[in-house]
Amino acid sequence: MSPSKNKFDHHKGRFVEKVSTSNRVGLEEDFPEFEAFPDAPTARAPAPAAASLSVLKVNMGQQINEPQHRTGFYDTPNLVVRRGQEFLVKVTFNRPLAQSDDFQLEFLIGKGPTPTRGSLVVVTFNSRVGGPWSGRIVGSQGVTVALGITPTPNAIVGRYRTYVAVVMGTGMLRTKRNAATDLYVLFNAWCKDDDVFLPNEAERNEYVLNDHGVMYQGSYDDVNFKDWVYGQFERGVLDACIYILDAANTPIGDRGDIIKMVRMGAAMINSQDDNGVCVGNWSDNFSMGRSPTSWTGSVEILLQYAQTGVPVSFAQCWVFAGVFNTFLRALGIPARTITNFNSAHDSNGNLKTDLIFLPDGSPDTVNTRDSIWNYHCWNEVFIRRYDLPPGLGGWQAVDATPQETSDGYYRCGPASIISIKEGLIYHSYDARFVFSEVNSDIIFSKRDRYGTLTPYRVERDYIGRAIYTKSLGSDSPVNITQTYKYPIGSAEDHRTMARADEYGLERDQSELPETTLSVFINASQVNLGKDVIVQVDFLNQSNVPTTIQANLTGSVIFYTGIRASYLKNHNFTITVPANQRKSEMMKITAAEYVHLLGTQRCLHFVVSGQAEDEAVAAIKVLMLQIPTLTVTLSGVPKVQQEMFAKVTFTNPFNFALQACSLSMEGAGVMREKTRFYRVIEPQTSISWKESFNPQRAGKRCLVAVMDCSNLCELRGVARVHVTP
Amino acid sequence: MSPSKNKFDHHKGRFVEKVSTSNRVGLEEDFPEFEAFPDAPTARAPAPAAASLSVLKVNMGQQINEPQHRTGFYDTPNLVVRRGQEFLVKVTFNRPLAQSDDFQLEFLIGKGPTPTRGSLVVVTFNSRVGGPWSGRIVGSQGVTVALGITPTPNAIVGRYRTYVAVVMGTGMLRTKRNAATDLYVLFNAWCKDDDVFLPNEAERNEYVLNDHGVMYQGSYDDVNFKDWVYGQFERGVLDACIYILDAANTPIGDRGDIIKMVRMGAAMINSQDDNGVCVGNWSDNFSMGRSPTSWTGSVEILLQYAQTGVPVSFAQCWVFAGVFNTFLRALGIPARTITNFNSAHDSNGNLKTDLIFLPDGSPDTVNTRDSIWNYHCWNEVFIRRYDLPPGLGGWQAVDATPQETSDGYYRCGPASIISIKEGLIYHSYDARFVFSEVNSDIIFSKRDRYGTLTPYRVERDYIGRAIYTKSLGSDSPVNITQTYKYPIGSAEDHRTMARADEYGLERDQSELPETTLSVFINASQVNLGKDVIVQVDFLNQSNVPTTIQANLTGSVIFYTGIRASYLKNHNFTITVPANQRKSEMMKITAAEYVHLLGTQRCLHFVVSGQAEDEAVAAIKVLMLQIPTLTVTLSGVPKVQQEMFAKVTFTNPFNFALQACSLSMEGAGVMREKTRFYRVIEPQTSISWKESFNPQRAGKRCLVAVMDCSNLCELRGVARVHVTP
Repeated sequence: MSPSKNKFDHHKGRFVEKVSTSNRVGLEEDFPEFEAFPDAPTARAPAPAAASLSVLKVNMGQQINEPQHRTGFYDTPNLVVRRGQEFLVKVTFNRPLAQSDDFQLEFLIGKGPTPTRGSLVVVTFNSRVGGPWSGRIVGSQGVTVALGITPTPNAIVGRYRTYVAVVMGTGMLRTKRNAATDLYVLFNAWCKDDDVFLPNEAERNEYVLNDHGVMYQGSYDDVNFKDWVYGQFERGVLDACIYILDAANTPIGDRGDIIKMVRMGAAMINSQDDNGVCVGNWSDNFSMGRSPTSWTGSVEILLQYAQTGVPVSFAQCWVFAGVFNTFLRALGIPARTITNFNSAHDSNGNLKTDLIFLPDGSPDTVNTRDSIWNYHCWNEVFIRRYDLPPGLGGWQAVDATPQETSDGYYRCGPASIISIKEGLIYHSYDARFVFSEVNSDIIFSKRDRYGTLTPYRVERDYIGRAIYTKSLGSDSPVNITQTYKYPIGSAEDHRTMARADEYGLERDQSELPETTLSVFINASQVNLGKDVIVQVDFLNQSNVPTTIQANLTGSVIFYTGIRASYLKNHNFTITVPANQRKSEMMKITAAEYVHLLGTQRCLHFVVSGQAEDEAVAAIKVLMLQIPTLTVTLSGVPKVQQEMFAKVTFTNPFNFALQACSLSMEGAGVMREKTRFYRVIEPQTSISWKESFNPQRAGKRCLVAVMDCSNLCELRGVARVHVTP
Repeated sequence: MSPSKNKFDHHKGRFVEKVSTSNRVGLEEDFPEFEAFPDAPTARAPAPAAASLSVLKVNMGQQINEPQHRTGFYDTPNLVVRRGQEFLVKVTFNRPLAQSDDFQLEFLIGKGPTPTRGSLVVVTFNSRVGGPWSGRIVGSQGVTVALGITPTPNAIVGRYRTYVAVVMGTGMLRTKRNAATDLYVLFNAWCKDDDVFLPNEAERNEYVLNDHGVMYQGSYDDVNFKDWVYGQFERGVLDACIYILDAANTPIGDRGDIIKMVRMGAAMINSQDDNGVCVGNWSDNFSMGRSPTSWTGSVEILLQYAQTGVPVSFAQCWVFAGVFNTFLRALGIPARTITNFNSAHDSNGNLKTDLIFLPDGSPDTVNTRDSIWNYHCWNEVFIRRYDLPPGLGGWQAVDATPQETSDGYYRCGPASIISIKEGLIYHSYDARFVFSEVNSDIIFSKRDRYGTLTPYRVERDYIGRAIYTKSLGSDSPVNITQTYKYPIGSAEDHRTMARADEYGLERDQSELPETTLSVFINASQVNLGKDVIVQVDFLNQSNVPTTIQANLTGSVIFYTGIRASYLKNHNFTITVPANQRKSEMMKITAAEYVHLLGTQRCLHFVVSGQAEDEAVAAIKVLMLQIPTLTVTLSGVPKVQQEMFAKVTFTNPFNFALQACSLSMEGAGVMREKTRFYRVIEPQTSISWKESFNPQRAGKRCLVAVMDCSNLCELRGVARVHVTP
């Protein structure tokens, strides 16, 4: 996306003019004040006459238009409208309009705008043909005329310059360039003819207008909530999103196209390939930037990127998803973040996640290349897929986390969720990849002494265990797994899997022996700092006793499933009587694991057992429980009235917390504020009180995050209803 | 495709190991000579005993295997085989094999090879399980055993390292790394289960094995032949193609996947985005490299790229297509180059090529942003589309010319030709773009004095006028237009267009008045240096005379349709009697145009006429005719016998040719040789004789090209049948 500097020297014989890819706003005039008609090239402006029409003032009517367009929340002095819907401009002339007067409005976007690219729009108000936006005179009051202008539902999205041109004899006399009359045009989920049309008002309120959200993390049986400030209406955020389009060299003419915009966004939110917004970092060293867990929302990231032009450090999947969500909603595209628990990754383009074990039953960490993420966050957008056969519109998966190169670039989607559910994985874009993220099988294989692999167990319902998104108007999750797949084992599921196989997504076909032995790992929730007890239950459903050579290995893992530290290995032999259950316990004391955690809090256990003629295996992820920050608000919750937020925390651990950075932020409430604590000793407390003035009415949230160098992040949130 | 250097620091918590993307051949050992079994980690090599088996020699059997695999033409000392087909390896042991002996062959590719990625293959010859390649003992002669090995039809393509491992008690004893036993595995068009299977032997001979070809240029009614040396078997070319895969960071595990390989190739043959092979340059300044017209074939380009790692300057569409074709055929993929005459380009993602005229009828060069290439060359590959629904396999368009960014990268395809013909443009990849290249309408619009466009004429059969490729076993073109589209106006054509429209490829819907007036431009073929006469014929099919205000504009254009120089403009008024034809002539003398040509030889005329209530327009491209070089061969055409090639040329023009570079080359005949002439005065002759020794038997060609700074390139070719 960064063509070589001299691209257009080499392309002299190819392009009439450089394709415009910049919506940067300058103050240059687009036209001479008087432009002679091309058929009268030497004409000059007629001498001013009392009778001739001229423009005194152009009023973009923010107060009238923004409630109609639901854009009043955008913290910008310019008018923001959604396309496909009329807005009013009030033009004050030097005298009342006469029948013979001829004038037009002109909206220009990008450099070298032209009608064939939709970047120069002429709006007429009489019988003379203009287009493609329509215009009408709504009314007039003295010398002020109210003009109704309706952008087409496929208009270019971005910041336009507005001119009024009056026809004067042999040419046109125009208003001067005035940044105050610049106009933002957005996608319009309220407009039936827009490709982002979303019929339900509650959904539009959530997926376009809600500037606060929750992402879900942890594990499918122990879901954690992460509040996230999307902040798409905050000052500078919309401009930052347009800046991203410029940084991606997105041709201005492509900026009305929902497919191109969404796909470009997925590529640009990560920095790989294209110097996009966020730098991914899955190590445990974030010294060159901010830790991915330290962000409270998207605003600081977007503003920093737009200000510096340099990718922001650092992000992991939920940061990419959060920032992408802000980008999408800011531009008016219905969007949400989703979480896939047990997400298959970096797989080999098939439906197999291979876990390989050594002859002794311990994991073969050298040859196991696939990984299962505890969870992975991505986004969905609600759009019409004009580019696909009917029936595939609606929610589409898009993913800005740089995982696999989708088609060369680090990005993914839009992939129709319906096409994933139906196994129609050939549909653009990347349905194949998303399908394997939610549908892969886990293949447990033994690697024999000669280097050959033999699969001995297939787990078909571990991957894509649950897919969650925030419910409408509430913080609790809604399980949308059934939008991605049919129930495992159902006839529809078989049909879907058969289709995927047909289109080249190879599934494991190993014929495995019937088994009578099974194994499960159980571990109860435990607070970080307490001892962990893991229980392995073997169940023998045969009529003879079975002796098993087993290996139980515990690790600290990153949320990506990759081992951060090796914890403990337990080899044991167990004989399970016929038709009975028998257990083995392993205890890991706090002293054994706490010093190995770093900023992780996820333990991972895998058991592998070999009986005489069958083998079993199981996996268990255990999230250690952590305390929350207490956030309390005081004062009268009223717009522009002073309030106070207090964050308190007492270190309950027997070790000191180091290099603690505490941040708080709320959309429409408070820009991010941060305070630093070098050390928080065991059992000591901190308390931080800040004043703020809410900017906007309604349900508002304040998010607090504390990020330490030797502990996973701690979070807290407070809610308040602000009155106007 | 060039991830930041420290990618894998940031990804510590994501990947077990860096994904291998290099097939670079080193001489490091992959294993210790004795590798203890994992269940006996401290075992040591047993003391040598007379009875224990050991390997004395491994013979890859080039002489036996290469005729079977049709790979003997590759100029490399290593064995080259096609996958999915057995090859023989002869292993000589220290003694005859006994029943109890256990050994295996191992084929490794890339760094950190592993069985789950298909990059470490274990081949066994007894009941012990190996896989996935199959092995059998074909026979033995004393201590030498002939082993038959069949790579799977989806095996990774590239250069493998070969080991023989003998099981010795508690471990395995292996042969040492030996580059002489390295093995190239290619795609196999002869194998039914390979995704590149091509059933017809004559087609396989042309599209996989022919190392010489012809591309077609000029205009559809005046087709020029350009001989091109593909040279896929020349020394170093196969390695250069594998180097391209490495430079693209193509994961080793993806190199058996035809879709990924073809798509990656389309991106890598041009230098944009990814520092690929060729730098596009459509200017008229090639001082920083070689002119695109100066190449005789692909060999020098590929070798230079592999040697320097730096993109090679310069290329235009036929160079990209020629080099891409070599890359594809070298790897065993059936491929051909095709030419689309009147190719729509850089269009706005719709089916409209907009030509805009000023009120006076002259072309509006500022607002016309679309262009029509006289011709455009791309490639087709013959592959199964496992990733698409049935019925879409066969020929697929792929295009390495950097035109539009397909999905962010400069590349295009593979797009199923059937999906283009049927209007199923949603199928991956870029069917939409190729569809518009061959199917766009030309919209002639007038731009009125207020800036508004009004279409007045639509030309539906100008774009994609003819699509040519070389016929089997001959140099003449075959017209394959009907593989891309149904006859214009047929019911099937209407259905296809309706579908394309449905999937968002907007077609012009202007309702234009019935016309009774038409216009054509006629110009006979003329030699460069002679006067040009252009005749404009108006036909009035109404019953009243019509007076037309007309404008005829002539230009010198690049082959991309972009104006290189303005020639002449003729405004005239003509009255055509009822139901009659009337003509207007324009003469352009040699003196008027020759000094404006530069290295172009293509004149372009456009006429636009306005009658009282209708408007007409027409376009005509005229190629100026040029002389050829004379190439004569002498000597006995026999392999390794000395022969002579003589190139002669007499400058027929009345101006001197400057800075002339004359090259000749022939696949299997002569590596490129170049001679430089500072100036060739009018009417003077040059003659250059070179000796050469043909390397290969069969029909061979020798191509000569002369590139001058002030004239388009001149070409010549000689053919010879070389006996073995």
